[in-house]
Amino acid sequence: MQKGLLIVISGASGTGKGTVCKKILADLPEVAYSISATTRTPRPGEVDGKEYYFLSRDEFKAWIAEEKFLEYAEVYGNFYGTPLNKIEERLNRGEDILLEIDVQGALNVKKKCPDGIYIFLLPPSLEELKRRIEGRGTETAESLARRLKNAVAEIEIGREYNYVVVNDTIENAVAQIKSIIAAERCKVERNPDKFQLGTRNKELGTSF
Amino acid sequence: MQKGLLIVISGASGTGKGTVCKKILADLPEVAYSISATTRTPRPGEVDGKEYYFLSRDEFKAWIAEEKFLEYAEVYGNFYGTPLNKIEERLNRGEDILLEIDVQGALNVKKKCPDGIYIFLLPPSLEELKRRIEGRGTETAESLARRLKNAVAEIEIGREYNYVVVNDTIENAVAQIKSIIAAERCKVERNPDKFQLGTRNKELGTSF
Repeated sequence: MQKGLLIVISGASGTGKGTVCKKILADLPEVAYSISATTRTPRPGEVDGKEYYFLSRDEFKAWIAEEKFLEYAEVYGNFYGTPLNKIEERLNRGEDILLEIDVQGALNVKKKCPDGIYIFLLPPSLEELKRRIEGRGTETAESLARRLKNAVAEIEIGREYNYVVVNDTIENAVAQIKSIIAAERCKVERNPDKFQLGTRNKELGTSF
Repeated sequence: MQKGLLIVISGASGTGKGTVCKKILADLPEVAYSISATTRTPRPGEVDGKEYYFLSRDEFKAWIAEEKFLEYAEVYGNFYGTPLNKIEERLNRGEDILLEIDVQGALNVKKKCPDGIYIFLLPPSLEELKRRIEGRGTETAESLARRLKNAVAEIEIGREYNYVVVNDTIENAVAQIKSIIAAERCKVERNPDKFQLGTRNKELGTSF
């Protein structure tokens, strides 16, 4: 059986990772979501165990001590982490797992899971990124400036990923990511079984 | 400007390379066909300069001497070759070139053009491959047996390609190849320009 794909989608803050990932999950029922844990305050409408596991700082530190995280990072004063428990197990069962993760976190995962698929989302321009972060309405002027400055540095890190997708429209970005997933399923190294065809000479009886 | 993709589609004799390639070209007008040269006799309906450049053995040898071929090979007593002239030039102009080529030829091209995309087509089974070669009606019993024996060896060589696609139906195979092409266009190493976004701080004026 083919091992599942670990699909890691990342990009600078405000690039639209969340919206793109939701659409991928809606369109591809065979892909399951990996839920992150965080110590940040839930935004309006966010539900514990759905968008995130919302933990206190003490709870988060306990999970770190119990080595429950594939990776974790502190971003803007809050902790974010990816629970390791279940991910490898699910991949080995042939399930495809989608991971939405910040830029720093994704590179940590890449070291541990080099056969994952690392996709970097880009905004069409920095102007557009600024507009999107402002539009979210959850940033102070200071945190907006910090996010934008950080975005410039983060975009450089994108060169270490496998794929880059410009999120000009959700439809385009999602279509490209679906193509990437379909293509990765065709990689020769993920399909050693398919070549055993050539050794099953008995299929042809005595014809040669 | 992004360099064009060299898309190489290969597979054992009778796997359906030709039909798959025709459909890809029909569906993707931005992909252009690389026409091979051969010394074999045209099949009914085949036109010189369309399916192949049909050359005499003397003409073919002259093209070899003039180094006009990216690669050439003798298969079942006939020569097949890929005219080098124009391919690199077209790739550098940003054109995507599709190359349909036998298994041996594709590996020769891979040595010279390692950044090409090497796609190996598999039949669903050897039984089905046998049926398809018989159905073509252009084979003697002897050449059929030889082709099938060769196919077994060729399928093993498929492990050296980048992607493997099972040609169970034309629709499935074509859809997978289109995904592969779309995904390859997103590869980070093919898109260095996209990351220059992060250095164009002037886009944001004096905001930081």
